Amino acid sequence: EIAAAMLDGGADPAQALAGASVLLTAGPTREAIDPVRYVGNRSSGKMGYALAAALARAGARVTLISGPVGLPCPAGVDRVPVASAAEMHAAVMARVAECDLFIAAAAVADYRPAAARSAKLKKHAESLTLELVRNPDILAEVAARPDKPFTVGFAAETEAVEAQAREKLERKGLDMIAANHVGGAVGGLEADDNALLVLWPGGRRALVLMPKPALATALVEVIAERYAASTSD
Amino acid sequence: EIAAAMLDGGADPAQALAGASVLLTAGPTREAIDPVRYVGNRSSGKMGYALAAALARAGARVTLISGPVGLPCPAGVDRVPVASAAEMHAAVMARVAECDLFIAAAAVADYRPAAARSAKLKKHAESLTLELVRNPDILAEVAARPDKPFTVGFAAETEAVEAQAREKLERKGLDMIAANHVGGAVGGLEADDNALLVLWPGGRRALVLMPKPALATALVEVIAERYAASTSD
Repeated sequence: EIAAAMLDGGADPAQALAGASVLLTAGPTREAIDPVRYVGNRSSGKMGYALAAALARAGARVTLISGPVGLPCPAGVDRVPVASAAEMHAAVMARVAECDLFIAAAAVADYRPAAARSAKLKKHAESLTLELVRNPDILAEVAARPDKPFTVGFAAETEAVEAQAREKLERKGLDMIAANHVGGAVGGLEADDNALLVLWPGGRRALVLMPKPALATALVEVIAERYAASTSD
Repeated sequence: EIAAAMLDGGADPAQALAGASVLLTAGPTREAIDPVRYVGNRSSGKMGYALAAALARAGARVTLISGPVGLPCPAGVDRVPVASAAEMHAAVMARVAECDLFIAAAAVADYRPAAARSAKLKKHAESLTLELVRNPDILAEVAARPDKPFTVGFAAETEAVEAQAREKLERKGLDMIAANHVGGAVGGLEADDNALLVLWPGGRRALVLMPKPALATALVEVIAERYAASTSD
């Protein structure tokens, strides 16, 4: 049975998250400039979807708030499709009080156009200026709740990965952060493989480059371990 | 044989474009803001890909310059993948002298960020300003060539569709334009069905709402008819 589970992609026979309720975000968001154009990002959603599948295999009840991606919903996962950061924020806030863990794997747009136009922009000018305003920080808002769930963030950094991720962990008051290097030769948002550096207050673990499904299983093991430690405090 | 061809999606047994060389663009372009973010648009590439398939069925040699889409390359079509408008421009200009027809079905970004950043933008500010500069107008540049091919453009308009498309046809010196209404309840960039209003100097034909593959076949018939008229002048 253990061998069968391992062949199935490394499902944890111990069901380390049995009974836990997980709210997970994945994919990019799209911020409308006009009815045709948007500001987007290169997140494929592969890591978040692999994580949703691994969490379900570990026995968790998983709600996946997903931006626009071309991926099928993993078995046993409840998916809520959204497009913009504002929609993702609303979908998370409506459900966060009921979850035990919140995992923010989505690449949420930090900024949106100040005003989306209802008619398509015409291209008369040689240049134009797009005014952007900051989106709500879903992760920080969840982590700041008095009754906050065990909160896991992600960080995609182009330089000084560990220092920037540790700073984000502390500034936002997260329980854990999983950081990866983007813009390099291997791994990252669009790739099939990835590597992660997992940080928490007082600890770290490096997960080496591997296919995203295997990496998701390894990350869920670390999350389950730290979650168990937090509930036994 | 005619019945078999019709069952096959309406291939023209007359091979109306036999021997013609067609350069076709399709899909969106992505304009990098930084290594992670981009300005994109909602084009699915479905109409352009259906057109590539219909052109190949009509006997044309088809080169498809395609932005990032999740579609398989149609049988008998030579695909050149690109990401940005600048890459699409270069790929078209390298091949345009050898084509008989140029069909611009891509939703090319009109503007790109003035300078793509090599490191990821950090979100310290409450608001920020993105400076955009105009991209080269591939369609107008092709139509202005002394040895220009039969040149077909597309127009996606949110209002006053016929007037705006007719103005674009004349201003850019196109041989034909296929216009559709976006932002409405039916049809358009992401839908499976669409309707087109086809305009040329002195004429028009309305193609009613139908699935994109059938619409592509109908549009290729109009293109072949007008192309034949232009070469017999």
